[in-house]
Parts: sequence; structure tokens; C-alpha cells
Amino acid sequence: MHDRALPNGEDGTLVERVIAVVNQRIAGRTLAPGAKLPSLRSFAETMGVSKSTVVEAYDRLAADGVIQARRGSGFYVVGHAPPFSVADLGPRLERAVDPFWVSRQSLDAGDGVLKPGCGWLPADWLPEDSMRRALRALSRAPAETLADYGTPLGLAPLRQVLARRMALHGIEVGPDRIMLTESGTQALDLACRFLVEPGDTVLVDDPCYFNFHALLRAHRVRIVGVPYTQNGPDTVQFEQVLAEHRPRLYITNSALHNPTGATLSPVVAHRVLKLADQFGLTIIEDDIFADFELEPAPRLAAFDGLDRVVQIGSFSKSLSASVRCGYIAARRDWIEGLIDLKIAASFGTGRLAAEMVLTILRDGSYRKYMDGLRTRLSRAMGETSARLKAMGIQPWIEPRGGMFLWCVLPEGLDSSVIARQLLAEDIVLAPGNVYSLSQSAGRFLRFNVAQSGDPRLFSALGRAMAAAARRGAPAQIELA
Amino acid sequence: MHDRALPNGEDGTLVERVIAVVNQRIAGRTLAPGAKLPSLRSFAETMGVSKSTVVEAYDRLAADGVIQARRGSGFYVVGHAPPFSVADLGPRLERAVDPFWVSRQSLDAGDGVLKPGCGWLPADWLPEDSMRRALRALSRAPAETLADYGTPLGLAPLRQVLARRMALHGIEVGPDRIMLTESGTQALDLACRFLVEPGDTVLVDDPCYFNFHALLRAHRVRIVGVPYTQNGPDTVQFEQVLAEHRPRLYITNSALHNPTGATLSPVVAHRVLKLADQFGLTIIEDDIFADFELEPAPRLAAFDGLDRVVQIGSFSKSLSASVRCGYIAARRDWIEGLIDLKIAASFGTGRLAAEMVLTILRDGSYRKYMDGLRTRLSRAMGETSARLKAMGIQPWIEPRGGMFLWCVLPEGLDSSVIARQLLAEDIVLAPGNVYSLSQSAGRFLRFNVAQSGDPRLFSALGRAMAAAARRGAPAQIELA
Repeated sequence: MHDRALPNGEDGTLVERVIAVVNQRIAGRTLAPGAKLPSLRSFAETMGVSKSTVVEAYDRLAADGVIQARRGSGFYVVGHAPPFSVADLGPRLERAVDPFWVSRQSLDAGDGVLKPGCGWLPADWLPEDSMRRALRALSRAPAETLADYGTPLGLAPLRQVLARRMALHGIEVGPDRIMLTESGTQALDLACRFLVEPGDTVLVDDPCYFNFHALLRAHRVRIVGVPYTQNGPDTVQFEQVLAEHRPRLYITNSALHNPTGATLSPVVAHRVLKLADQFGLTIIEDDIFADFELEPAPRLAAFDGLDRVVQIGSFSKSLSASVRCGYIAARRDWIEGLIDLKIAASFGTGRLAAEMVLTILRDGSYRKYMDGLRTRLSRAMGETSARLKAMGIQPWIEPRGGMFLWCVLPEGLDSSVIARQLLAEDIVLAPGNVYSLSQSAGRFLRFNVAQSGDPRLFSALGRAMAAAARRGAPAQIELA
Repeated sequence: MHDRALPNGEDGTLVERVIAVVNQRIAGRTLAPGAKLPSLRSFAETMGVSKSTVVEAYDRLAADGVIQARRGSGFYVVGHAPPFSVADLGPRLERAVDPFWVSRQSLDAGDGVLKPGCGWLPADWLPEDSMRRALRALSRAPAETLADYGTPLGLAPLRQVLARRMALHGIEVGPDRIMLTESGTQALDLACRFLVEPGDTVLVDDPCYFNFHALLRAHRVRIVGVPYTQNGPDTVQFEQVLAEHRPRLYITNSALHNPTGATLSPVVAHRVLKLADQFGLTIIEDDIFADFELEPAPRLAAFDGLDRVVQIGSFSKSLSASVRCGYIAARRDWIEGLIDLKIAASFGTGRLAAEMVLTILRDGSYRKYMDGLRTRLSRAMGETSARLKAMGIQPWIEPRGGMFLWCVLPEGLDSSVIARQLLAEDIVLAPGNVYSLSQSAGRFLRFNVAQSGDPRLFSALGRAMAAAARRGAPAQIELA
């Protein structure tokens, strides 16, 4: 084959042709592991291409680890190729419905899988053009931006923008009290590392974002829950839990609570902070859905002045989950300790990611994009809600914005059972009990309205519900 | 001012001019907090610009949080601007010389500060052009690449490249046993979370990379050390420490050990693994300097077959510290647990960062860049070594590659004292005891030869050494 003339196409084609020939020889053991490749000149002659084409082909093969350059001696086939197995694990039906269930299934989902249970927007709802513009702008950035670690606190102009955005929610904080992190989750992890020790008790809402459970288990703390109402945590039970369990920390969302979509009322905010004062409780307020609010809700951090409240957030939901950047805002005297922990656990913060977020936030089109996104979500919320109601699946509340609709199934149905059934049809749902410490949300499902537009979801749901009814699920409930 | 005609430049200039006028009015309280801004049309007329110019200016002011849009009502000056203080903390002389000393000083260092003590390359030594090309290529990537979380293990083609690169060091591992992380440090953090519990004992080299101490303290474990020789850990003492303290984990670098630049010998590798077997010890091999080797050194992971050895690495040293991407390779039955921990602690991995690393590694110029970098480092190593020797500062060994030169000061001198003195002259050194658990490296300094080219370093060092000698430092040693 190698002595027939190659078509004289563009360089890329010739290089790829040379690569293909080398790969064929390796696969056919003409070139065994450890064997020396032909010299550049002789192979160029054999293949009827220029020497520079072979140079580029060998370079790309070396970059892929197929061959290896030895100084002054030429190129050799790599000795021990690893077994070839691209293992992108598919959804695993057998996994227990634990705090990782929804995240693992959602992250693992391939093309063609519907993800009404997942916690983020579809890629085509996000500001793609702004991201492309930002990448082009960054390709012309100074070398330091492309290569260096950021400063310990992270990119100063982004921290300034964040301080101004927090001011819109009544939180007065200088950029020197804001530390950038790799993500909102990392911000939460660092705050937990700073604030609690193994064996401490931590309070969460019931239901709450399932990853709070997962993270707190990794921290080896005891977790207690307080029921979440349509206006925030149930304050009577909140007080009882504080008195009984003396938790050191409370983690919550104030605006657009996950999974319920509920919003903290000013009265409950006041009561929670008064109790926190009384019992020496620290609070982490996860404000990751801030940009999705239609009307600003009260923030614990604003009422409290960031004294016993730490606020965290990120851009994973509104901009991109691919560009990792989060933040933490806290008391001035806590920032030094948080920086030390960040260095210990991840060294720097991604400077390029921070520059990219800053570029997008300062892009003139950002406000219009967010306005459009909120409108689009409102419409999807209305549509999803109507379709679910028509099937007998009832929204717990009509949320004031955001992407989540927390819904209850008809009596007697178990959302974990339905979720397992739909997973077999390549539909990832979010069953209520992954959010519930007390496992009292067995009839609930969280729907992401931006991921619920496909009619297949509703027909599959209908079939699963009918099958469950035939199996006599309600009767089982009556026996219990 | 606002009624004089504006120069008819490009759009950007006009927009910036409008922004400047609004900012001036706010600063001068003509527009007080809460005040409504002029309508787009009237302000366009006032300024003598088009309405679209004012739209863009208001959008950018809104993005910066200076003004705020209220639906259907117009723009308002933000009520509570945070106190303006861009606090990029300067080097703080008063900080104790603890494990964070070098990292904080290096990360905080502004322009004009020399950093011979820091652990990374100057930005202009890194493959700037490849990074710019990669960013341009990514600006044309599919929307999913720009917006979505990656899969739980991380970008499959990059894991394949990593598997092939590890094969070059004799480590046979499929891409399904490699998990991408946000950084090498995060890989280490996750491995520690997976492998140890608070109160466990962990073994490190003495000296070792200072951040191992910092991270292990955050994990609340007991740390014990074993002296590092020119061929790896002292195996006699290694055995004694295992017998006495029964550490659960040992963390080390095999190739180009940090800070010493030493390399593990095959005999020591064999002995260490035999003892690990005997005492049930797990090992984390941090291979972050793999690309800097001139001759491949043995890897514990290769000898052991990734059974009781976990290997971690990243691209922060050879490609960019701004693009965060690391990895961990481990036993197949440990990977699931590591994924769960990664999701709990940081949710996804930065997909964009992983795509960028992959693009650069596959760039045909990468091999040439690394060859050139190794040559440049060898030259810098020779030059720095010669200059230090001429001053009486003696390299402990001549390292076989890499960027670090571990040097001993003349008798009686304390490297922490010298480091503090040079910090006052805007030079960040790395004093030996930040690397030493036993605090027995008080006469050592680690030099990064890529950051040691400036003659100011050597003159400042000379002055500090002379001053120390005048203060009679040797006499103090004799008294001790």
C-alpha cells in the first residue's frame, strides 16, 4: 500500500494518511512494541510526501503516546499500550437511590437521554455566543492570564463585580471579603472544612439539595433536618432542633430553594437569625440561583451583615458548568483561614475560568440574555406545570422563578420506583427521597422545567404511573 | 460638558465616554444612589450619540453593578455600593514561616517581585502560542463543550492520552481507571479523603513538598517523616517508622522529588514496595514533574501495577497553572468511591480546562516545546548552580532535570532569617524548614532555576549572608 502515490490534498489529509499507515503497521505488528520507526527521510520517500509531513505525523503520534522520541536516536513504538477501553460508564440501574443517584445518572447520561431530574440547563439555553466571544478575547490575553496561578483571593475585578452584585441584594461586602473558588461546591466544602469538625452536628432543610448530604457525609458530621415550608424552615421545629441537637452549622438556600423552589420570607429570615444568635449557630447561605429570581427575596447574609452568615455561589447554573468558578463571602477575620484551606486543598483558583466569567459578565449582552432566560423559564414552568397537573402530578407551590418544580405524585405511588422504571427508558428523574433526610418525600419528584419539554417524558411517566397503579401500590400504602 | 460634541470615533470610544459621564455624575452625586437615570432617548440626545450607544453603555454599567435595570421602568443607580477596596494582599512579613509561607508569598507577589522560591515556571517559559491556538479552537467547539459538566470520570480522549503517557513509564492502566480532577492538589485531597480518616498516621519524606504538610493538617491526621536520601527514602528508617507508627499512607514523588530534585532508584523502589506490602501501607505517588525528566526514573506505580499505589499528576507545571486540570489513577475498585467523593466535593470537573489541555497535548508543537523547555532548564540549572557555588551556597545534588536546586547555606546561617530579609527586598525565597517535618533543614534553600536569572537575587543574597555573618550567627550555633 505504501508505494502507491498519495492524493495530493491539503497538508492535514497527508499527515492523517501517514498517521493511519503507522497505526496500521503497529496494529498488524509490522511495527512491534519497542520497534524503531523508519527515519523521517526514508519514510517521506516511501510515502511520497515531504519530510515535514512525516515530522508532523510523528509529532502527533508521539503526543498521543503511540510512539516515543528518544533523543538523538529517532522514534520508537511505545512498549506497553494500555488495554483499550473507553469506559464512559452508562447509567447503572442497580445503584441505590442514595444522595449520588441523581448526580451520577445525570452526569453519566449520554446523548438521547432525557434529564428532567438534572439540576442544570441544557447547553443550548446558555449564552453560547458570549462564551465564544470570551474565548476569542482570552486568546489575545496577556501571557500571565494564560499561564499563572491567580492571587490567593482570586481575580480582583471579578471580586469587585461580585461585591456590586451582592450589594443589589443588600449585602454590603468589600471585594477583600470575597474569595474565588473552583466552584460553588468547592466553596461549600471549604466553608465546611473551616467551620466544622468530624462529629459535629450540621442542620439542613428537609428536603434540601442532595449534594449537601453527600458532602456532609464526607465531612463525617452528624446531620439533622428541619422541615422546609413555603416561607423557609419551620421556625418552631428549627428552635426545637437547635435546643436539642445544638448544631454548629446550618446550610440553606434563601432564594429559590432547591428542590422546592420556595423563597424565604423576611419574617422567617429574622426569626432564623435571632435563633442563630441565641444558639451560636453559623449559617452557610448557598445563593447559586440568585440570577434566576424574578423578584429579589431576602438574604440571610443581608439581614445579618455577613457576621454569622457565609454566602457562597457560582456561575455553573447561569453561565456554564464547563467553566468552573465559584465564590465565598465571609467575615473579614475568617478569610485568611479560608485562603490557607484553599491553598492546601486546591492550591490556586482557575485564573482562566475567572477571566472568562468576568468577560461574559461584562459583555453588553449578558443582561439581555438573563432577561430572556428568565422569561423562557417562566414559560417552561407554566407549560410543565400544566402538563403534570393534567396527569395528576401536583406542584407543591408555583415557584417565583428558577428551573425547579417540586411535585407530588398521586397517593400510593413511590417516586423511587417510578424513577427506576424511567431510567430503563433513558429518562433520568429526581425522586424526592434523595433530597430528604427523614425519607419523607417518597411521593415527590423534582422537575427541571428546562429539561422537561420532550413529550416522551410525559408518556413514559403516564405508563409508569399506570403500571404502578395496576400493581396495587395504593393497597400497600393502606397496609403500612 | 455633556452638550459639547463628542469625537466621532469607533463605537467603543463613544460607549466608554457615555460610561465615564454616568460614573462622573454618580461620583459627584448629581445621580445619587437610587436615582433614576435619564431615558435612553433623552440621554442619547444630550450626549449627541445614537440610542444604541447609550444602550450598550447602560448594559455595561449594569453588568458592573453600578446601575440596575427595573423591568419596564428604566435604570437606577445602585443604592448601596460596597466600600471600594481592591485588597490584593501584599507580602506580609509578619507571617510565621509555616507550610503556607512560600505559597502565600509566591501567589501574592506582584509585578517586580523576584520569586526564586516559587514552585512554577515564569509565564513566558510556558507554551503561550499553543494556549492561544487552543483558545481559538475552543471558541468553535460544540455548545456542550462550552456549557456542560463533564462525565464523572472526565473527558475520555484526555484520559486515553494520559493512559498512553503512563504506559511510557511502564504503568499499564486503562482510561477507565483514570479520573480527571480540578488539579493535582485536588487529586491528592480526594485520595486522602478516600484513604485516611482523622487520627490516622501518614508518612511523608523529610524534606517534602510543603503543601503535603498543609493538606494533611487539614485532614487532621498525625504526620511522621522519613529522611530522604539521594536515591529515595532511607529504607532502614522507613522500616523502623512503619513498625513503630503503622502509618496508613505514604505520600511521595518518585521522579524529580520536590524539593530535593533527587530520583528514586529501582532498588529503593523495590524495598519500599516490599515494606508497604508487609505493613499494609498505601502509597500516593505524585508524578507532577513527569514531563521534566531527561531520563525516565522508576515509578512505584509501575513496579506495583497500581495496586497499593495511587498515582496523581497535573499540567500546572508544564502547560499552565491558569488552566486547572489534574488526574488520579487508581485500582479499579477504588474509582467508584473516588468519583462519589469528587462529586460531593466539587461536583463536575472543568470540561473546558480538560478540552484545552487535550488540545495543547495534541498540538504538533508540544513535543518540541517540552524538548526546548528541558534544554532551557538544564542550562538555567548549570548557571544557577555555578553562581550559588561561587557564593558558598552548595547544591545538595546535581538533579537529573526539573527546576529545583536544593542547596545548603554555609554553616551557621539560618535560611528562614535570610528569607525574611530578602522578602523585605521583594524577593521570595523558599527556606528549607517549610519542607521539613523535623525542622532539620534550617540551612537549606530551594531555588527554582527558571526564576533565578536576575542578578538582584545574588547581590541581595550576598548582602544578607554577609549581614548574618556580622551578627555572629556561627557563634550562636557553636553555643547551641
